[in-house]
Amino acid sequence: MQPQRPIDKAFMLQTIELAQLGTYSTRPNPCVGCMIVKDQNVVASAWHKYAGHDHAEILALHQAGENAKGATMYISLEPCSHQGKTPPCINAIKASGITRAVVAMKDPNPKVNGKGVQALQEHGIEVEVGICESEAYAINEGFFYSMENQRPFIRIKHAMSFDGRIASYSGESKWITGELARMDVQKLRAQSGAIITGMGTIKHDDPRLTVRFDQWPEDVCHLSEQPLRVVLDSKLHISPSASIFDSDPEKVWVVTCNSDKSKYKAIEDLGAKVHYWPDKEGNHVDLNTLLKHLHAEQIHNVLVESGGRVAGAFFENALANQYWIYLSPTLLGDEGVPVLKLPSVRHFKDRKQLRIKHTAQVGEDLRVILET
Amino acid sequence: MQPQRPIDKAFMLQTIELAQLGTYSTRPNPCVGCMIVKDQNVVASAWHKYAGHDHAEILALHQAGENAKGATMYISLEPCSHQGKTPPCINAIKASGITRAVVAMKDPNPKVNGKGVQALQEHGIEVEVGICESEAYAINEGFFYSMENQRPFIRIKHAMSFDGRIASYSGESKWITGELARMDVQKLRAQSGAIITGMGTIKHDDPRLTVRFDQWPEDVCHLSEQPLRVVLDSKLHISPSASIFDSDPEKVWVVTCNSDKSKYKAIEDLGAKVHYWPDKEGNHVDLNTLLKHLHAEQIHNVLVESGGRVAGAFFENALANQYWIYLSPTLLGDEGVPVLKLPSVRHFKDRKQLRIKHTAQVGEDLRVILET
Repeated sequence: MQPQRPIDKAFMLQTIELAQLGTYSTRPNPCVGCMIVKDQNVVASAWHKYAGHDHAEILALHQAGENAKGATMYISLEPCSHQGKTPPCINAIKASGITRAVVAMKDPNPKVNGKGVQALQEHGIEVEVGICESEAYAINEGFFYSMENQRPFIRIKHAMSFDGRIASYSGESKWITGELARMDVQKLRAQSGAIITGMGTIKHDDPRLTVRFDQWPEDVCHLSEQPLRVVLDSKLHISPSASIFDSDPEKVWVVTCNSDKSKYKAIEDLGAKVHYWPDKEGNHVDLNTLLKHLHAEQIHNVLVESGGRVAGAFFENALANQYWIYLSPTLLGDEGVPVLKLPSVRHFKDRKQLRIKHTAQVGEDLRVILET
Repeated sequence: MQPQRPIDKAFMLQTIELAQLGTYSTRPNPCVGCMIVKDQNVVASAWHKYAGHDHAEILALHQAGENAKGATMYISLEPCSHQGKTPPCINAIKASGITRAVVAMKDPNPKVNGKGVQALQEHGIEVEVGICESEAYAINEGFFYSMENQRPFIRIKHAMSFDGRIASYSGESKWITGELARMDVQKLRAQSGAIITGMGTIKHDDPRLTVRFDQWPEDVCHLSEQPLRVVLDSKLHISPSASIFDSDPEKVWVVTCNSDKSKYKAIEDLGAKVHYWPDKEGNHVDLNTLLKHLHAEQIHNVLVESGGRVAGAFFENALANQYWIYLSPTLLGDEGVPVLKLPSVRHFKDRKQLRIKHTAQVGEDLRVILET
């Protein structure tokens, strides 16, 4: 293996930054950036904008035109070798006269997974793989996880007081965290293919769980879609007048253990879907069945925004990948609503061990990302 | 006022670093550092080691000898002008030939508070005050608070899971946090004049609450004393065989609301003191009375290491100055032991609002310092 050149690393980091411009719009596709460099001059820079639109490589090749001949292409992800919604990028690269390609990482998508790199090499293009690999992985963490594990990457999110409470004894929770923390959650929603909540949250907070794209810069929001919203409602108690049906009701799933289909109509008349996916005991929604269906919908990133019971169920079933905690410097006392219900944890040895991945102050609050 | 010279700031920061060498040994005195600089050469550097020993200024003047003539003295705190356990430093400085003094901050001790600076100026010494004042304040925060408020500075400390629990449902808590976090707590203890705990902690954990100086570097520990340990035991249920009496029992106070003095003997026979300081209702220890007595003992820094009830009482009575939380990336569930009992907080509006002062990762745990 050749030594990595510092200039390659610098160009690749720029390429990865470009890729991130697609964070809120490319799903179900990953974010991809591409730069073409000739004689150390950047002659093209592009990013994949949304599924169905040209891939970053194609956009960059258009920009570069004749300049692609003899140039180096930087790509944050292995180029595709298969026909998807758009033709394989490999063909265009081979035809362009590019003589060297620097690829941050192979695409774990089983349809690609090394075939793109191989095709370029067979064409006589010099290929280097693995430049800034961890940075490239991080920007599409959920996508890659989903490819490798055949189920979505799951983030649990809670806004809580420093004594572990998500609401006061009286049930009030608006607002535990400050404006900047709540804006941060909007970003988290916007990069998720689905938001899961429970009936407790619907009953207490009556949220819409949408992204307020009207408060976003126009170049982001006009490309973005609302995530699917999923309500776990084992007894099917949700009211058709719940705010979650107010906008895009066709992007709402209600998942229930109630087999009385006559009760589904009022909800389905709104355009929403009711799914009957009970677990073996029949009292709770079967989370694995739900995740299987979300995966089938090409949903790679799921955000759980719920009370302690639903969030706790994801931990109890070892399904949580990350725990995003927004800690407000406030105290709500032991009578406040606890952040997590974990009925299986009674002894110290049964505790759920995580590790701290990242910590940042967000306004007056603290955001901690824990990893399982 | 003259512009601050960068060189003064640089020397003062060094002087403050020197002062901090006394963090674990100077109490009830503050930490003080002193440097003497002549023609930009450091000719003396000293720090106050323990009460009764020479002040930093005297040690530095001894080191400097004839070099003090025409030199600049940097002092992290205004020199004293009164007779304490040692003679006033002012006299020695005046006699030394020092022509310029740079003082980080005035001493809020009412016996000094500007008199030291004034005396130097009257002697014709050029004095600058307020260089690195906030840094100088920070190293003696508890001392200054105590001087200004006539009661100790109170730090509440908890080691807890991210869901706000200090023990599992089964009562186990060893060890929620890792070794580095526990070492950090040792330092916090060592700089406190008193540690307060409650009977719940004595019953469940049977701690000694001492500093393990045998694990410390020798130059620190041979100067240091164990803090006073205070047990809040309203019903006087503590057993004379409790581990807290194992070492230095004469440095243990048991504070009770039980007026039956015949029960005091078994504890007092160990060398410990029993104090009867009930509040008006007679069911709980009166914390203000306790703090008044701690202040009379020249205790400026108090650490509360207790369960949720005692710690909560400090918050309920608005007596907590800082909340040191060691957050372990673990989850103990809603049946775990809650970190704080706050009976007065039932509505959101009654929450205790704090602010984040500092955050640091300590080993695998997170330490957050909240301020009231």
